Amino acid sequence: MTEAEKTSRRKQCILNAVSEALEEYDYRHLTVEDIAARAGVGKSTIYRWWKHKSDLVLDAFKEQTAPVFELDFQQSLAFNFKQQLLKLSQALNHPVGRALLVVMAEHREAAGEFFKQYLLPRREQMRKLIQVAIERHEIIAEYPFELMLDTLYGPIHYQIIFFNRIPDQTYIEHLVSLVMQPILVQNSP
Amino acid sequence: MTEAEKTSRRKQCILNAVSEALEEYDYRHLTVEDIAARAGVGKSTIYRWWKHKSDLVLDAFKEQTAPVFELDFQQSLAFNFKQQLLKLSQALNHPVGRALLVVMAEHREAAGEFFKQYLLPRREQMRKLIQVAIERHEIIAEYPFELMLDTLYGPIHYQIIFFNRIPDQTYIEHLVSLVMQPILVQNSP
Repeated sequence: MTEAEKTSRRKQCILNAVSEALEEYDYRHLTVEDIAARAGVGKSTIYRWWKHKSDLVLDAFKEQTAPVFELDFQQSLAFNFKQQLLKLSQALNHPVGRALLVVMAEHREAAGEFFKQYLLPRREQMRKLIQVAIERHEIIAEYPFELMLDTLYGPIHYQIIFFNRIPDQTYIEHLVSLVMQPILVQNSP
Repeated sequence: MTEAEKTSRRKQCILNAVSEALEEYDYRHLTVEDIAARAGVGKSTIYRWWKHKSDLVLDAFKEQTAPVFELDFQQSLAFNFKQQLLKLSQALNHPVGRALLVVMAEHREAAGEFFKQYLLPRREQMRKLIQVAIERHEIIAEYPFELMLDTLYGPIHYQIIFFNRIPDQTYIEHLVSLVMQPILVQNSP
């Protein structure tokens, strides 16, 4: 194993410990001590890579969701929206996702930076899929698509944070239908 | 002053102290000790009415925003939406609003309960205004209005929490236009 592989393994092990700990208790009670003990490393190892427990949660969420949010270009835009929102809803209901929302609220500036990095590549992929959907004549070509994405993703967070409700498949299907109704080609003039 | 008035005054004074403290430091550093000192009361007085500092933040937000979110039935639905969203955006950017988002994320169950009580009367008012707008022929009569409200309020929270961006008037006007476009009477078939 190269040095880089060893580092990667250890980081992975630490992030797994974060997830494991959060399954047992809330973010408030999460300590770097406990993560270190679970991962079998010293606290200084953790502090070499992460400044604060909030950074660990951001990375644990990233690690856990990286493969989850892949788009399927063979499927329609509507299908992809539904899948993405359902996965998002599930991810935010997972203990790491719950902790993530606390971190986002507590460390807005840091979280804003993180999400710019995390969300920009996803938005880029989404823009490509929208382009493909236009070329496949699924949707109209001219529309404020960026703003439309907010009206899809926003309500998921809103339902979870303000109503403590995890949007289910039915809610998500209604939402996607409502938001996409003006752009579907068969409905356009 | 009656006993009830005295109690009300003291509560008000304590909630003002919460707001004042949050202007100086983050929710994480908020303590019941400091609030008691600022309000000139004993800690036991605070604990008589509130179990946890998070409950104080919920009530401080309620107190601060109660008069802010009144609807204006003389104005159009679109006008009211814009006003509401702008005020919401400002309220969540205020120190008490920032703390509120932390509390919501940390205490989802309690916050869910609180918001059911807090939001239900507002939704009720909003439903009335929608009914009035239908009668005034501003909007069509049949539409999933509840879901539509999520696509208006959701993006405000989403922009703030995930992008650390406070939606401004331009963003809000675009959002309201986009979401209302399918229901405006002049655009209906």
